Amino acid sequence: MSIQIPRGTQDILPGEIEKWQYIEETAREICRRYNYKEIRTPIFEHTDLFLRSVGETTDIVQKEMYTFEDRGGRSITLRPEGTAAVVRAFVENKMFGNPTQPTKLYYSGPMFRYERPQAGRFRQFVQFGVEALGSADPAVDVEVISLVMDLYRTLGLKQVTLVINSLGDSDSRTAHKEALTNHFAPRIDEFCSDCKSRLEKNPMRILDCKKDRNHELMDTAPSILDYLNDESRTYFEKVQQYLKAVNIDFEVDPGLVRGLDYYNHTAFEIMSNAEGFGAITTLCGGGRYNGLVEEIGGPNTPGIGFALSIERLLSALNAENIKLPIQSSIDCYVVTLGEKATEVSVSIVSELRNAGFSVDKDYQDKKMKAQFKAADRLQAKYVVVLGDDELARNAVNLKAMETGEQLEISIDSLIPSLLEKRSRGEL
Amino acid sequence: MSIQIPRGTQDILPGEIEKWQYIEETAREICRRYNYKEIRTPIFEHTDLFLRSVGETTDIVQKEMYTFEDRGGRSITLRPEGTAAVVRAFVENKMFGNPTQPTKLYYSGPMFRYERPQAGRFRQFVQFGVEALGSADPAVDVEVISLVMDLYRTLGLKQVTLVINSLGDSDSRTAHKEALTNHFAPRIDEFCSDCKSRLEKNPMRILDCKKDRNHELMDTAPSILDYLNDESRTYFEKVQQYLKAVNIDFEVDPGLVRGLDYYNHTAFEIMSNAEGFGAITTLCGGGRYNGLVEEIGGPNTPGIGFALSIERLLSALNAENIKLPIQSSIDCYVVTLGEKATEVSVSIVSELRNAGFSVDKDYQDKKMKAQFKAADRLQAKYVVVLGDDELARNAVNLKAMETGEQLEISIDSLIPSLLEKRSRGEL
Repeated sequence: MSIQIPRGTQDILPGEIEKWQYIEETAREICRRYNYKEIRTPIFEHTDLFLRSVGETTDIVQKEMYTFEDRGGRSITLRPEGTAAVVRAFVENKMFGNPTQPTKLYYSGPMFRYERPQAGRFRQFVQFGVEALGSADPAVDVEVISLVMDLYRTLGLKQVTLVINSLGDSDSRTAHKEALTNHFAPRIDEFCSDCKSRLEKNPMRILDCKKDRNHELMDTAPSILDYLNDESRTYFEKVQQYLKAVNIDFEVDPGLVRGLDYYNHTAFEIMSNAEGFGAITTLCGGGRYNGLVEEIGGPNTPGIGFALSIERLLSALNAENIKLPIQSSIDCYVVTLGEKATEVSVSIVSELRNAGFSVDKDYQDKKMKAQFKAADRLQAKYVVVLGDDELARNAVNLKAMETGEQLEISIDSLIPSLLEKRSRGEL
Repeated sequence: MSIQIPRGTQDILPGEIEKWQYIEETAREICRRYNYKEIRTPIFEHTDLFLRSVGETTDIVQKEMYTFEDRGGRSITLRPEGTAAVVRAFVENKMFGNPTQPTKLYYSGPMFRYERPQAGRFRQFVQFGVEALGSADPAVDVEVISLVMDLYRTLGLKQVTLVINSLGDSDSRTAHKEALTNHFAPRIDEFCSDCKSRLEKNPMRILDCKKDRNHELMDTAPSILDYLNDESRTYFEKVQQYLKAVNIDFEVDPGLVRGLDYYNHTAFEIMSNAEGFGAITTLCGGGRYNGLVEEIGGPNTPGIGFALSIERLLSALNAENIKLPIQSSIDCYVVTLGEKATEVSVSIVSELRNAGFSVDKDYQDKKMKAQFKAADRLQAKYVVVLGDDELARNAVNLKAMETGEQLEISIDSLIPSLLEKRSRGEL
């Protein structure tokens, strides 16, 4: 009996993996331009980290975490998102003490949430994200937003919308929280049980509720933008001014609150408007989290970041019908005829590879015709034909697959000849 | 209070990550030459997969797996190695039906074993590995071995030894198993409790025991090489012949049995001889597993592969004092003086990045001198100085950091000027 892949996860196979590689290479290149460096943190963390950072009242922590005890009795959790661990690493490795600040980091890797699998939603999914820690300059907010918009543009996405909001500083949020409590408290009985507990702990989470999203009180809820103090308002204006300076279009949506507790000031999401993209239109979410480093045990340090799912990015590319420029040819296929030739081909293939060429040969004792077919399927640019006859003359037949041109050359001149073709840009 | 990283795991930070990136890029390039394509499987699998493939009597399955129940009550396990999942994916996705065979795959990602952490041994570690499924040609064994030797050589490792053995086909193993049982049974009371149960289930595992490794019966145990039938012996000879043909040195060690149950025929390990490398000298292990695909529920398909740990590879590079050719400069740092200049710098930086340059600026309101210091630390090749005075003239000052040469140019000619430097190879 065969064993199946766990529900909500996927294998990424040749044919599809090339798109992932292309996207990751593009992301790495964009990060190089913006001077963000990669960081890798473990797949799992102590559960406490997520309780403290993501927030105990969030759906992620309450319903979606892969939490278990390891053999030493510790509670560990497969990371449901990337920011908490990057901040933990920033604190634990005392990166705040490095002379170059802000610390600009990016990560790319699997995250885990136990949700009901559906189109574009997996239990294991890959997030690419960046974090900039150590500056409260609104220009950094715009740098981070530019980076992701730049990535989408470079990949060819056109139908994306940037939505921004300000959640204000902690004073602004306290004022807003009080207004929200007053707004919802009289009719909280009409809301779900989660919202009832949110009312006391964190009323802003009510705005994020999936069950009660259509309740009439949602539309009339007090807007955070009306409760921003002067400093928060100035900050938000500066962000908008810089966005305009770098030619990035945006909309302001005061209802944008993000599903994690740690955000303040700038919050943003990027949506796909592509037709047929499906119900979940958010491609990327991010925001500022000036209190998080302290919450995790570090010195008071401002921070901002975003995360995006590669799976959704692929869906968006698909919805916009964008073909990534992927090529998967090989330089050379070695066709053999006869036992001696087959044996000698092992070392010829080895030498060609050592010279830097991508090369393959038959390993299934196939007839010559089938070997040529394999060379075609692998889109080989050249085929080296090696028969016992040629071998007796110390020669091979070199065939250019595009033109069909063939010539016999000595084995010793095979590599120099292919190197020359490479230097002419033909390989 | 701060939260710490889970025991036995590590953060990989800027300064160290560049080595990982370099190694991974090199591995990808070598795989391109050998025509192996990447595959990615989930971080966790159904526990059954590892019981069936790695083997219930192995240390990995008995003592080291991160096994837990998910919220749906399924027993899942963080993958302790890569082969089982690749084979599961090969079967589940019916890759045996693809016209191009053997299916040549590589993977790179974290694996998990709950072991006592020590130098070079982590609970989460990264394995790079390849699998070739669908050919029983000994030339494939040598291709796979060549690939990893090529990787080590390309990275600069010199002090590595390849050790090979044959575990024979199933007839040979049955004969050997009987001989082992006869050898150990009379004195099994002198062995650990694990070995006692191994005697019945899988006596070859006794040879792999860490506790009883010094027992005198170990040295005199019957060698598998004396029990190979003709077919197995011919196969092993062919592997050795091809290894010689591609100039790879090797030793034969009949005691090499590998810690997983699924191997047969060729088994191999690559060790580091570098002084000061430490107690664990194995860099890479692999072998043939002709029964595994069937065991996982697929058609009878031969296979071979290897896996290596990137952590140990880094230790070996370190022990041989090899510096990887890593460069981490940026093209340009924009220094600003005055409020207006600081604002304008946001769009200048953005335009430079859009033109493909790696660029950074100050986000901490630092004085000019400190900004130049930052440019130095980031190894900026050029500094663009933008003051309110220059701005009034619509100009910037461009300084080459290596020569100290400076000139004032118009803002509009900044990008063309840097593009020209790039086309001359100076950037």
